[in-house]
Amino acid sequence: MSEVVRKAQAAQSAAAVLGQLSTETKNDALRKMAKALLAHTGSILAANEEDLERGRAQGTSSSLLDRLKLTEERIAAIAEGVTQIVDLTDPVGDVLERIDRPNGLRIEKLRVPLGVIGIIYEARPNVTVDAAALCLKTGNAVVLRGGSSALSSNRRIVEVLREALAGSEIPADALQLIEDPGRGSVDEMLKLNGLLDVIIPRGGASLIQNVVQNATVPVIETGAGICHTYLDESADPDMAQAIALNAKVQRPSVCNAMETLLVHEAFALRHLRSLTGVFQSAGVELRGDERTRELAEGVMPAAEQDFATEYNDYILNVKVVKDLDEALAHIRRFGTKHSECIVTESQTHADRFLREVDAAAVYHNASTRFTDGFEFGFGAEIGISTQKLHARGPMGLPALTSTKYRIFGTGQIRT
Amino acid sequence: MSEVVRKAQAAQSAAAVLGQLSTETKNDALRKMAKALLAHTGSILAANEEDLERGRAQGTSSSLLDRLKLTEERIAAIAEGVTQIVDLTDPVGDVLERIDRPNGLRIEKLRVPLGVIGIIYEARPNVTVDAAALCLKTGNAVVLRGGSSALSSNRRIVEVLREALAGSEIPADALQLIEDPGRGSVDEMLKLNGLLDVIIPRGGASLIQNVVQNATVPVIETGAGICHTYLDESADPDMAQAIALNAKVQRPSVCNAMETLLVHEAFALRHLRSLTGVFQSAGVELRGDERTRELAEGVMPAAEQDFATEYNDYILNVKVVKDLDEALAHIRRFGTKHSECIVTESQTHADRFLREVDAAAVYHNASTRFTDGFEFGFGAEIGISTQKLHARGPMGLPALTSTKYRIFGTGQIRT
Repeated sequence: MSEVVRKAQAAQSAAAVLGQLSTETKNDALRKMAKALLAHTGSILAANEEDLERGRAQGTSSSLLDRLKLTEERIAAIAEGVTQIVDLTDPVGDVLERIDRPNGLRIEKLRVPLGVIGIIYEARPNVTVDAAALCLKTGNAVVLRGGSSALSSNRRIVEVLREALAGSEIPADALQLIEDPGRGSVDEMLKLNGLLDVIIPRGGASLIQNVVQNATVPVIETGAGICHTYLDESADPDMAQAIALNAKVQRPSVCNAMETLLVHEAFALRHLRSLTGVFQSAGVELRGDERTRELAEGVMPAAEQDFATEYNDYILNVKVVKDLDEALAHIRRFGTKHSECIVTESQTHADRFLREVDAAAVYHNASTRFTDGFEFGFGAEIGISTQKLHARGPMGLPALTSTKYRIFGTGQIRT
Repeated sequence: MSEVVRKAQAAQSAAAVLGQLSTETKNDALRKMAKALLAHTGSILAANEEDLERGRAQGTSSSLLDRLKLTEERIAAIAEGVTQIVDLTDPVGDVLERIDRPNGLRIEKLRVPLGVIGIIYEARPNVTVDAAALCLKTGNAVVLRGGSSALSSNRRIVEVLREALAGSEIPADALQLIEDPGRGSVDEMLKLNGLLDVIIPRGGASLIQNVVQNATVPVIETGAGICHTYLDESADPDMAQAIALNAKVQRPSVCNAMETLLVHEAFALRHLRSLTGVFQSAGVELRGDERTRELAEGVMPAAEQDFATEYNDYILNVKVVKDLDEALAHIRRFGTKHSECIVTESQTHADRFLREVDAAAVYHNASTRFTDGFEFGFGAEIGISTQKLHARGPMGLPALTSTKYRIFGTGQIRT
């Protein structure tokens, strides 16, 4: 039996026990996990150093090494994250609907754990802890498959966490790490219907597309974001500049950052030159359509393909549009249904934009950077769903649950 | 461009219009659809006769021909079904959550249509109308791919419905029928990410498994049901017999019918002989474990594989178990997480069964045959989900919707 099947089976057995535990029992285990991370900081850092050394030897980029790197402070922050999950409301057991039928049947729709969740992710070892804590809090077993570059760190972290679970009521087998670094172990997880109830990919576009294209297990697609900000004719110029700049440069590497700025022609005639200057001063490379390049300086020509690219970098497409309709059409064509924003003083235009744009989050006069579980007040986030089934947008704890119907009868039969 | 891509693109364009329509506008179109079906009964029956003739020439079984066959009465009932959908509450536009953030952002979580729904199904032409009406009511465009044996009927029905839509505000392109009878058109639909938002398969196990195994578009798995009824030691004998018999014979061909009866040994000692006699009188072939065959007569031996088989027929497995634990273990092993029932007078045992059994619907003292959108009071049903993502159990109109977040700002940026 392969490592993947063996560990998924162990996780499934553990899930049957874990799914029945009370919130307090699960919280107790989470507290033990947080403590154990702090107590074993030294050995986790030593394991992390192995990953970093291997990375440096392989010529890994410094930005990737930085994502991989743990420090005492980072481990403390990760442990603090687990403690915060303790404080969140447990959705499991909530009764979402009660139905009383004329024949006397009483029906309750109840929140239950999903079962076993597979998480496939890249270098960051903090995801290991974070995903584990969120899944266990909601009564789910979890099978983690992190990137091979973080294998030593992940292995040590999971050892520490499983030791902590061994002293709690949650079976240690509810937390599994796939250690096989080959592509084959991912491929195997993707086809594990009957053992995995869902797979959540977290990482770059190619990782996510591999999962979406090859999984037969249900998937929650996350991440890809080609987000637009549209500055309407009546936009307040200061607000427009603040929102657009924030959407691009506050953290360009994330999915809710803006990739394309759409500007109404009348607004562009008045403000585009100063606006592009502000972006350029902030170190943003601009690529524009013809009209943008007529109105502003230092803008490279944007190719068709640029509008379909998620840069996650200090690069921005700019396009002048003649009206709201053209902005909507552009978003329909190039948007990835993640986060879209209109800046306008026109209530009519705002209403129309919020109604017609098909995306997980649509904004009037606020930065797309707010599409985030913490910013929405969920207290946690397992990812941002860009699909329409099950969960859409930032996913808090309820996204990690399913439902079941309990039916109370007194001998009813169907006629 | 292939038929599938062309029609899916047309559906997607139509969905953008349809998704914005008011409930009254959609209901008006549904009423026109119902009227048109009645007005064109003659030509629909003529087309249906073509399918029946082709079927008879190909030696199709009489039960399949019966499922394919339309009559004036059946068409009237199908049209009446559309009228009933008019009366259902439209979930689109419902605000499910409102969040006020400390920074002044107002967030609303709103129900929206899924977009374009693909339905892949078998012979019954009533599904064509039913699925079309449910999808359109919830603001979704729909791409139908019915079985080739019903192609003439489906083609005429969709023609009639699209003519009706042409006289309404719903674009006729919101309703598409794939006419290519080859497997290739199904395969193409399964990979149509970006054009189809979800695929719902309706039909037998092999159709559903083909969709689950090959789709890259998100799927809502429906249907397969190996359902159990467990008669506990303290079960009321009359109630136990009534529920078990109903679960098996009221309609054996459907997914919520019972396939295996589990009987506590103490109950079996007192009642198994008379109980098996009742099933046999009802024409049910019994297959039992060793203990069952010791206690009752005329029971064939059940092979391991029998317990893993969805008969959908007048065949029943019977197994004597020594306690609730053994019943739970059997269900864990062979159940398909559809519908499971315990008959008991013990509240403790009932509570445990309802808590521990992992299935879409768990019953205490009522027949599993109630797992059905109409019986749950939803007024309609697009299918019964046996997966845990998005929707589980009978799916009413809300299962055909997604959500979107609308965020109202006053210039907020993230710091």
